[in-house]
Amino acid sequence: MIRASENHEYVELTSPTMLPKASGFLWNEQMMIHMNCRGYAVAQFMQPEPAKYSYAPNLEAKTFMQPEQPYYAHHPGRFVYVKDEESGEVFSAPYEPVRVLPDQYTFAVGKHNISWKIASGGIGIEMSLSLPKEDAMELWRVKVTNRSPNKRNISIYPYFTVGYMSWMNQSGEYKKDLQGIVASSVTPYQKYQDYDKIKHLKDQTFLLADHEPSAWEVNQEAFEGEGGITSPSAIQQEALSKGEARYETPVAVLQYRINLDPGEEREYRFIFGPARDEREIAQIRQYYFLDCDSSGEDGFVLAEREYADYIEEGRGCLTITTPDADLDNFVNHWLPRQMYYHGQTNRLTTDPQTRNYLQDNMGMSYIKPQVAREAFLTAVSQQNVSGAMPDGIILHEGAELKYINQVPHTDHCVWLPICLSTYLDETNDYSILDERVPYAGGEENGTVFEHINRAMHWLIHERDERGLNYINQGDWCDPMNMVGYQGKGVSGWLTIATAYACMIWAELCEHSSRPEFSNEFRLAADEMNAAVNTYLWDGDWYARGITDDNVVFGISADQEGRIFINPQGWALLSGAADEVKQEKLIRAVREQLETPYGVEKLAPSYTSMREDVGRVTQKHPGTAENGAVYNHAAAFYIYGLYAVGEKEDAYRLLRKMIPGPDAEDLIRRGQLPVFIPNYYRGAYRQFPHTAGRSSHLFNTGTVPWVYRCLIDGLFGLQGNPAGLQFKPQLPSAWQGVKVKRSFRGAELHINMKREPGVQTIEVYVDGRLIEDGILKDLKPGLDYNVLVKIPSVNN
Amino acid sequence: MIRASENHEYVELTSPTMLPKASGFLWNEQMMIHMNCRGYAVAQFMQPEPAKYSYAPNLEAKTFMQPEQPYYAHHPGRFVYVKDEESGEVFSAPYEPVRVLPDQYTFAVGKHNISWKIASGGIGIEMSLSLPKEDAMELWRVKVTNRSPNKRNISIYPYFTVGYMSWMNQSGEYKKDLQGIVASSVTPYQKYQDYDKIKHLKDQTFLLADHEPSAWEVNQEAFEGEGGITSPSAIQQEALSKGEARYETPVAVLQYRINLDPGEEREYRFIFGPARDEREIAQIRQYYFLDCDSSGEDGFVLAEREYADYIEEGRGCLTITTPDADLDNFVNHWLPRQMYYHGQTNRLTTDPQTRNYLQDNMGMSYIKPQVAREAFLTAVSQQNVSGAMPDGIILHEGAELKYINQVPHTDHCVWLPICLSTYLDETNDYSILDERVPYAGGEENGTVFEHINRAMHWLIHERDERGLNYINQGDWCDPMNMVGYQGKGVSGWLTIATAYACMIWAELCEHSSRPEFSNEFRLAADEMNAAVNTYLWDGDWYARGITDDNVVFGISADQEGRIFINPQGWALLSGAADEVKQEKLIRAVREQLETPYGVEKLAPSYTSMREDVGRVTQKHPGTAENGAVYNHAAAFYIYGLYAVGEKEDAYRLLRKMIPGPDAEDLIRRGQLPVFIPNYYRGAYRQFPHTAGRSSHLFNTGTVPWVYRCLIDGLFGLQGNPAGLQFKPQLPSAWQGVKVKRSFRGAELHINMKREPGVQTIEVYVDGRLIEDGILKDLKPGLDYNVLVKIPSVNN
Repeated sequence: MIRASENHEYVELTSPTMLPKASGFLWNEQMMIHMNCRGYAVAQFMQPEPAKYSYAPNLEAKTFMQPEQPYYAHHPGRFVYVKDEESGEVFSAPYEPVRVLPDQYTFAVGKHNISWKIASGGIGIEMSLSLPKEDAMELWRVKVTNRSPNKRNISIYPYFTVGYMSWMNQSGEYKKDLQGIVASSVTPYQKYQDYDKIKHLKDQTFLLADHEPSAWEVNQEAFEGEGGITSPSAIQQEALSKGEARYETPVAVLQYRINLDPGEEREYRFIFGPARDEREIAQIRQYYFLDCDSSGEDGFVLAEREYADYIEEGRGCLTITTPDADLDNFVNHWLPRQMYYHGQTNRLTTDPQTRNYLQDNMGMSYIKPQVAREAFLTAVSQQNVSGAMPDGIILHEGAELKYINQVPHTDHCVWLPICLSTYLDETNDYSILDERVPYAGGEENGTVFEHINRAMHWLIHERDERGLNYINQGDWCDPMNMVGYQGKGVSGWLTIATAYACMIWAELCEHSSRPEFSNEFRLAADEMNAAVNTYLWDGDWYARGITDDNVVFGISADQEGRIFINPQGWALLSGAADEVKQEKLIRAVREQLETPYGVEKLAPSYTSMREDVGRVTQKHPGTAENGAVYNHAAAFYIYGLYAVGEKEDAYRLLRKMIPGPDAEDLIRRGQLPVFIPNYYRGAYRQFPHTAGRSSHLFNTGTVPWVYRCLIDGLFGLQGNPAGLQFKPQLPSAWQGVKVKRSFRGAELHINMKREPGVQTIEVYVDGRLIEDGILKDLKPGLDYNVLVKIPSVNN
Repeated sequence: MIRASENHEYVELTSPTMLPKASGFLWNEQMMIHMNCRGYAVAQFMQPEPAKYSYAPNLEAKTFMQPEQPYYAHHPGRFVYVKDEESGEVFSAPYEPVRVLPDQYTFAVGKHNISWKIASGGIGIEMSLSLPKEDAMELWRVKVTNRSPNKRNISIYPYFTVGYMSWMNQSGEYKKDLQGIVASSVTPYQKYQDYDKIKHLKDQTFLLADHEPSAWEVNQEAFEGEGGITSPSAIQQEALSKGEARYETPVAVLQYRINLDPGEEREYRFIFGPARDEREIAQIRQYYFLDCDSSGEDGFVLAEREYADYIEEGRGCLTITTPDADLDNFVNHWLPRQMYYHGQTNRLTTDPQTRNYLQDNMGMSYIKPQVAREAFLTAVSQQNVSGAMPDGIILHEGAELKYINQVPHTDHCVWLPICLSTYLDETNDYSILDERVPYAGGEENGTVFEHINRAMHWLIHERDERGLNYINQGDWCDPMNMVGYQGKGVSGWLTIATAYACMIWAELCEHSSRPEFSNEFRLAADEMNAAVNTYLWDGDWYARGITDDNVVFGISADQEGRIFINPQGWALLSGAADEVKQEKLIRAVREQLETPYGVEKLAPSYTSMREDVGRVTQKHPGTAENGAVYNHAAAFYIYGLYAVGEKEDAYRLLRKMIPGPDAEDLIRRGQLPVFIPNYYRGAYRQFPHTAGRSSHLFNTGTVPWVYRCLIDGLFGLQGNPAGLQFKPQLPSAWQGVKVKRSFRGAELHINMKREPGVQTIEVYVDGRLIEDGILKDLKPGLDYNVLVKIPSVNN
């Protein structure tokens, strides 16, 4: 019923009812659309703040994307009603809102399009959605085929939700000269000062068609009548009434009455999106539907191709063939595309959280390092002269810090050296450290090296008398907002993370020929690791922090929130945990946090407010930060396991993050395979019934860390100033893998295999054994064949 | 199909499809519920800001009540699904969501309850909703009757929407000990400073039942399955699955499996509402369902009775019997109840607009003058020492000025003498002017007389060199926000209104034995009337204002917004218009603004932004301020017509405001009779198709002004310091009326009739002719029989 596809597509689904929330998503420079397999859609575009052109049926709150998206009958969507004009029978493609189970159904999420093939009562409907590269609009194809042995007399009714646009002004009309529907509105505002903001907004929603429709309806209520959305009264008539909306909720429905011979097919194309005015819509129509190039192709076709090329640019630097075909499909396709999305769009926000912005661009280091470089410079140019990093990075003039970015967090500095190190591993471009960049306010400037030095000094300074880092209103766990708001509480995780960041930075100082700076940071890291071991080691794992009232939490004495994953994983990275502690904390994680769906962020989930910890304890048990399998955190833990050579545990947990094609597992998680959401529902030991469900949120810093787990850990193909270091950590069940690695312009064709008698990893390039397992002096543009011999498991 | 009822109810509707948006509403001290005839509901309660306990299916924006409420399949509602266990047939009462047309249907909006009687396939369902007087909760009765000749085996499923409570935390469970469903949530917040605000909120929604259910469902998605809300999969099973919601959207559905003999009936009672915690819910259950008084009645029954008594207290001071039965029904029942609602609840906001607060309490002067008195004192206690009134009156500690109250308007002072004059007319309590009240800030205080003097001086001062009042960012027309924000633009209406307020105040000075003050205000009024005639008389009507750039608007040269109603109606009151001008402007209004549904606020409606006028021009043509039949403004115009003796025009327009039982008219307006909404859709000459539709918003300052039109105008029964002045202005078609008027504790039984030969109105009390038509020396507690002889039309 569900399978990862062989062809260019990632995945196919063969029933609309098995995974009702399964979705694909597409994005470009201006917009994103989350398209559900049953026809529901969530789309937004940037102007420059996120905005809608297909609205809910009521006045929806403006907020960030919500997990576990609830759908409902009038949820915005894109459907095609189909009526047999002889029998009067009606179905809708892809499935909603009529919900007639089709005879055949395929939902396929491709790299650059999303498509359906449906057959019902002898009529085939193929729908596909693509985007242009830059414009905010949807490009739809709808193909109708008579798959029955008789002539068929049918009507099809493409239906695009417009919804409740505005209480201030909304309307809709069919425009003959545009061959389409235009719905207009005015974004509501009350203060005249806001007029300048709303005046240039794209407040119109249009639907353009390449074929002239027989009839149309623009009035939602008139369209539905007493039949409602599941059986609209208007389509029981011979022709739609060509109505209009005057302050009523608009909708865009077209009717095409067609006679089809057996086997005959018709294709229709539609463009749906936001616009400023009719002049702009007329231009869109001209470019996409009317003007053709010398080969006779119009703008629509060119845009589809241009978009495919754009997406194709998002290749990663790793192509793998392993015994695990699902992993291959995931790593070769979905994962780099997802990193590309994050790096290219910054999650379509104008004020990405600083830690997200840095990590998303860490991922971009593997795809378009130049983009990552620019982003690191942008980030430090907003750094305070004190060294503190802001909570969000402003990407558009006039943008403001919103939502959680208004709550001060203390961890943003740690991400600077950690994320930059990947950029340097990949590019060896240490010149970035010499770039001069201003500080926020623009009065002072300094090299990137000096910027990061200040960031590290700020972290070292912001500690209490025990040497533990203040948490203030939160660190990398947004809603833990009441641990230290009085200025005394400290974070175990942040102290460990600071130690790790100091170590990384010390290394980078050395690598960039500034060894005189490194000692200070190594000493600081040692000091912090020691402080953590003194104050936060609970006997079998590390505590999460100490509150303003000096209460240590995240410890065995706690009934809820006994153990948090973050201090454990990072202690493996920072060197805080010696071998004895490593073994103990890994066991604790396995026993208390591991579930069939990955490791939980904390356990047991809080079931009621703990005032000295704060908001996290009020979130629903097993969701988001309160005990979910938070994949971002899980990825760090896996990275930590690789850091200490725990390759079996690491691979096992990595694999849990990626749903396979196992139907039972997928139904539990409620999503397509090869898609990592920001969380799976946790609280497995408390609420097993709901555990494992996907949040269906695709914005997550997980992806670049999974990639780092692959590059630095599993396949062991990390760069360093000298070249490429081979240190694979294949799971024992694997006898060998083939990997194509692009690195600093060279292409490496790597064959890794276990060989009896091999004692340690041996690396051969073109038959020559490489000393230290480091491949040096790689030449851009050249190909290298690499053989990596790995000790047999039985050795 | 639709009729005003003879009994205690106002109106009955006999089909759910004829007026799909027809609604009733109930309120108490803590909440209000707007209940649609098909089962949809909008409810909110105060804690102290407006909050919900039955939510939309998505995250809805917090905003003020929207006009022309759009309904949709998953709109919050209260329904009862009914299934025949033998045939499997399902319908739902009252109509949504299954939409099976019932065999019988009655929707009755009563004074203190809303009820339905439905029969479908031999099963009768009676539903009724009442409220307690003070608690925020709904009291439901559901009676099932077997109206068929056979035994019936059925299940009924009362269904109460809980909806999408919170992305932070939501869940729901059936609680055996409470015999009900409890859904819990945490109001989302991000800043720790907000925790104190959300911590004490009533974040639980409960449904309590007086009978133990056979089964239940608390999970919306599980309940619906693939059948969806119109045909839920769960009710196709024998029993609901007794599920729970764990971060899924909760719902409250109970199942009762019952066997009914022919004629047998069962009654169930339910309580649905918000609560802080389960302890509170247990107390509610104890009081309403378990504890009984000596007569065996439980709290539920007592609460229904107490609520009926509470509503009964909202009697007006006028009971009429006229040739116009619809008017009688309207004036004797709906109108005073609606004034009572406004005065009692202040529209369930914590910061009513100052002009609304004063006018709502003007209406309360006819019902509970003591409440009005307190309100006037509250209002002036928030007056600035400069004399300026704030944009909203804060009614709860910690409340803030919200929405439109953040935009400075310049008209609030004019309402002080105008509204107070009604209180004084009714009560003769001039002692209120001697009350000492602080100014805002509390450092200075003064008598109410001094307060209002300052308000008048503020208005007189805030004028330009021509003597016209500045409009700033708006006056009594919220969105005209760009006429004068630069500090130069002036308002024609406000200048006229100030003149009228000055005249009223001059009169009150004289009535309160302060004649030495009155001259100044009379002179000011004359000066303003003269300025208006100099600068704003356009030849046939008054202009609306002059912009910052010195452009006069609301004039014959304008293509849109040529004529506004407000300057015309008030010019009849202020004395600006002499007889010639009166005649001209009345003709202009009749020709350009009058429609079958009343007079429009302005015409032609603006169809695009006019930047020097501002936001009003961006509102949808024919809605709200942009050309709607804005009943509040229309009521003033009618009041003005009575002021100049234009009784025929006045009655004709008054009658257009109140839909009669004429089905065609009602369908056009989309609402029940005897209900005045804040607007009917206007732009009659531009968009005739939509003109006449009701906004369905019941919060409006129209009601007390309609009452004043009746008291001061139509029936001419206005008080003055000497007593009660008789000045009826009956339309010529009326031969006579009977009126009961309560006045200063006395009861007047008045018989007005036309008599041939009578030249001017003659008033007889107990057979004695009263000089000047003023009945003096009325004794509280006494009844008076009054005969009013009116000249025959033929005279």
